[in-house]
Amino acid sequence: MGAAHSSATCLSSPATTNIPRCYLFHRVSKPSSNSSSIPTIYLHLQKPTSNFISQNHYSLKSPCSSSKIVPLSCARVRLMETQEGSASKPVIDFHGIDEELIQKMAYDALVWSSLHGLVVGDKSVQRSGKVPGVGMVHAPFALLPVAFPENHWKSACEVAPVFNELIDRVSLDGNFLQDSLSRTKKVDVFTSRLLDIHSKVLEMNKTEEIRLGLHRSDYMLDEQTKLLLHIEINTISSSFPGLSCLVSDLHRSLLKRYGEHLGLDSKRIPSNTTVNRFADALAKAWTEYNNPRAAVMVVVQPEEHNMYDQHWLCAALKEKYNVTAIRKTLAEIDKEGELLPDGTLLVGGQAIAVVYFRTGYAPTDYPSEAEWRARLLMEQSLAIKCPSISYHLAGTKKIQQELAKPNVLERFLENKEDITKLQKCFAGLWSLDDSDIVKRAIERPELFVMKPQREGGGNNIYGDDVKENLLRLQREGNEEDAAYILMQRIFPIVSPMFLVRNGICHKDHAVSELGVYSAYLRNKDKVIINDQCGYLMRTKVSSSNEGGVAAGFAVLDSMYLT
Amino acid sequence: MGAAHSSATCLSSPATTNIPRCYLFHRVSKPSSNSSSIPTIYLHLQKPTSNFISQNHYSLKSPCSSSKIVPLSCARVRLMETQEGSASKPVIDFHGIDEELIQKMAYDALVWSSLHGLVVGDKSVQRSGKVPGVGMVHAPFALLPVAFPENHWKSACEVAPVFNELIDRVSLDGNFLQDSLSRTKKVDVFTSRLLDIHSKVLEMNKTEEIRLGLHRSDYMLDEQTKLLLHIEINTISSSFPGLSCLVSDLHRSLLKRYGEHLGLDSKRIPSNTTVNRFADALAKAWTEYNNPRAAVMVVVQPEEHNMYDQHWLCAALKEKYNVTAIRKTLAEIDKEGELLPDGTLLVGGQAIAVVYFRTGYAPTDYPSEAEWRARLLMEQSLAIKCPSISYHLAGTKKIQQELAKPNVLERFLENKEDITKLQKCFAGLWSLDDSDIVKRAIERPELFVMKPQREGGGNNIYGDDVKENLLRLQREGNEEDAAYILMQRIFPIVSPMFLVRNGICHKDHAVSELGVYSAYLRNKDKVIINDQCGYLMRTKVSSSNEGGVAAGFAVLDSMYLT
Repeated sequence: MGAAHSSATCLSSPATTNIPRCYLFHRVSKPSSNSSSIPTIYLHLQKPTSNFISQNHYSLKSPCSSSKIVPLSCARVRLMETQEGSASKPVIDFHGIDEELIQKMAYDALVWSSLHGLVVGDKSVQRSGKVPGVGMVHAPFALLPVAFPENHWKSACEVAPVFNELIDRVSLDGNFLQDSLSRTKKVDVFTSRLLDIHSKVLEMNKTEEIRLGLHRSDYMLDEQTKLLLHIEINTISSSFPGLSCLVSDLHRSLLKRYGEHLGLDSKRIPSNTTVNRFADALAKAWTEYNNPRAAVMVVVQPEEHNMYDQHWLCAALKEKYNVTAIRKTLAEIDKEGELLPDGTLLVGGQAIAVVYFRTGYAPTDYPSEAEWRARLLMEQSLAIKCPSISYHLAGTKKIQQELAKPNVLERFLENKEDITKLQKCFAGLWSLDDSDIVKRAIERPELFVMKPQREGGGNNIYGDDVKENLLRLQREGNEEDAAYILMQRIFPIVSPMFLVRNGICHKDHAVSELGVYSAYLRNKDKVIINDQCGYLMRTKVSSSNEGGVAAGFAVLDSMYLT
Repeated sequence: MGAAHSSATCLSSPATTNIPRCYLFHRVSKPSSNSSSIPTIYLHLQKPTSNFISQNHYSLKSPCSSSKIVPLSCARVRLMETQEGSASKPVIDFHGIDEELIQKMAYDALVWSSLHGLVVGDKSVQRSGKVPGVGMVHAPFALLPVAFPENHWKSACEVAPVFNELIDRVSLDGNFLQDSLSRTKKVDVFTSRLLDIHSKVLEMNKTEEIRLGLHRSDYMLDEQTKLLLHIEINTISSSFPGLSCLVSDLHRSLLKRYGEHLGLDSKRIPSNTTVNRFADALAKAWTEYNNPRAAVMVVVQPEEHNMYDQHWLCAALKEKYNVTAIRKTLAEIDKEGELLPDGTLLVGGQAIAVVYFRTGYAPTDYPSEAEWRARLLMEQSLAIKCPSISYHLAGTKKIQQELAKPNVLERFLENKEDITKLQKCFAGLWSLDDSDIVKRAIERPELFVMKPQREGGGNNIYGDDVKENLLRLQREGNEEDAAYILMQRIFPIVSPMFLVRNGICHKDHAVSELGVYSAYLRNKDKVIINDQCGYLMRTKVSSSNEGGVAAGFAVLDSMYLT
């Protein structure tokens, strides 16, 4: 779980030097001087390349180790059982596809994207992150959906309401949040500030009666174990509810036209209704707030190249529910915001029913005290926060680590079946005071990643370095081990894919990550919405580097059920 | 009538120096060394500004003459009768609109354009004219529809099928086309080449049994006479069938949201179905051709920043009728094209049912012999040409001038009512051998424009210069007078408008031009389609220069019926 978020950034295209720079989707967590953020736990990091900041690169199975790895034998061994036949395999013979057909499809896909608003701002064009309608470029996308086992898709859908409920329960346990994050607080200024706000709210004895969550749980299929492993749940600013639907539509449109040639049926792409379901949830929350003159406020970054994704959601909100959304930065909210004595939040004189965050998850989103004041102001108000500070904290990686500990889920959930469902998809995650795991990692370092708790990237330890570092820590016997955690190393399936970026179609080896959107809305005891909403598939180029770590940046994708 | 065509071009934005250059829609007729083109007759020209090449600027009433002008008393006096209450007046008090509301509307409009494919290629971005999906910017648009009298709109719709029929009849009279253009042929290499192709086709005794016309008749409301005057009919490459529909949708969407504040009703924007009607006509022509394996071929410029307009039409053709369109340049057709003995046109091995031109109307479209060979090849084939060489020639300005002569329409049309309808909307147009008109023009030069027959721009004569030049020609008594024509000077209504270009909303004084799309399809004696299809409104900034001529570039607009 964590505050990592997808966004679009800009990278020099490797293809030629004179074409405009292309957009890459990646999780943003810019290192900053005052940044200390939430620990990144589930994702393997590598050093950021010159202009590519990311915390979400995936490990690539190194050729030498691939055939020898066997399932971990440890506390989590049950997760490692191979599910025969469930792994994603390419359903398309990519080598057999006619080059001319690919070019035709890519051209049609580019046209489709342009006509249907599958676009982002192009960072190489001035104002493209501020002014809509200028400097647009198609969102990067995979030309074809990624093959994905239907049973895994169903499981991920089934578990979504359980995650929703879990987040809600955890959010209500203020002491659990404060206690679990107390060590993080000491080393991470950002989490510390979030906790301060949380404390103030606790002191106010303020209850969030109406609670709205628009989450996205991210998963990867592990080739070793054939399991769908949960990477994290995003409880703040889950991106691409709009564009993900469009990519599904794009792929459906392409398969209607070319499916026969490819032996693919457009009906195998699952329906993706995230944008409408999220709009529905926002509208229903707005209705619960019960002030017809109030608006939804989207809290945005001052510059946002992924604005069209957000605009699609607001367009659905307006068109289907006639609810108006306004867009404000944290700085603007600090400047224009006020609390009425009854708790009503006014921004620029406009009453706010729902605060929907599309920023505020990273230290860089709070460059000054103004942004922190704005966050506190909203938190103190009666407006429905999506998410509240409690939901935000419940989604941090540190909390996910706590929840992965034995018998912790049982504290929040009664239903044993639900608990089993969640545990089945958790990836392995251990602290270094677990001597059995440390022993195992020294024996089989290729199955683990040693990660610093603290966010920042570039400091993950792989392969033999895991062994050496663990042995060193054992020798030294000091407190340094508390700075690390051990993670199960995920080996996603690598497949050849056609990736379209900046108007150019490349064939490359890539791995995919599934995001499952879910919405949760309750008012006191009444659960109004608790559903899976749709999905996002992101496909990333993989290339092994010296450390055996995958480098890559994502394009939007959809899935083809197998 | 003429071969002038709208396109997007690029101009440095006057607002700031560091924002990207914006797009302007104007009629393209680039002067070129071998260009001599068809005479521009109905439009008042001014010298092209540094980077603005246009032949379609409108005269702006100069303040001094405005209150004094009275209707012409001449052969066309019937056209000058004032129709009370029919002139377009602003229905919105532009001075009274809240600035904040305008900014909100402009923002929403920019978002709408981006999400709904109301886009063009941005010339300042490389590849934006070649590769779809890169370097997109919203099409320039007026923020609000232009007020337009319903009776004029109805008249223009009613006369559309008559124009369709007229073009068809004229196209069948090869001798009339050749004879009427014989003098133009001597001074205009471009027309001469078109006539050569036409002659070859005549020699072949080839009959175009299936004839498809996708036309656009352009009109302006004359403030002096309150008449809707016909400027020209485009029989080749009528642009914006796609984007014009989107602008109507945009305005409808804005009025649904803001109409109440503005006192405007979205239902007063007429339905605009051009893109579907044009797709329907192409599909029906394809059906008449009767080869299920044949495609529609869109003949395109090598670089086309207005490609999305074309893509919308092809998308409708594919989605609604499952007819595939391919895109080829004239040079590609020369390279890949062949004629089978039975007359079938193959391009790259693909049989072509319908050739739809979105290029080929200007000398610059034929930079080498290859393009002329391609044009001839297509003309010699059995493929349905939209337009055929005869339709193309029937749409030239010179032919329109001929048709405006007394008793010429009667040669082609039987129905007196139809003839009256056409004559009612023709603007005044005379050759200099009409001594009455020359006399009148010497007396009232402010009501005329003296224009060279030959295209190129910048040589129009206005005001007192008309008088002086006419007197000089009378004194000299040589043949030079044949090089000029006299035109009724049109004084379109100038209104304050909000124009949105390159993400910036400006208030400016502007004039509007109505384009009425029409489709005509017949197979031998069977008329399959003969309809008005929809409309395009283009609104241009006006500013008087020393010559009293309007400078301006157009944004897309729709109309609000009054």
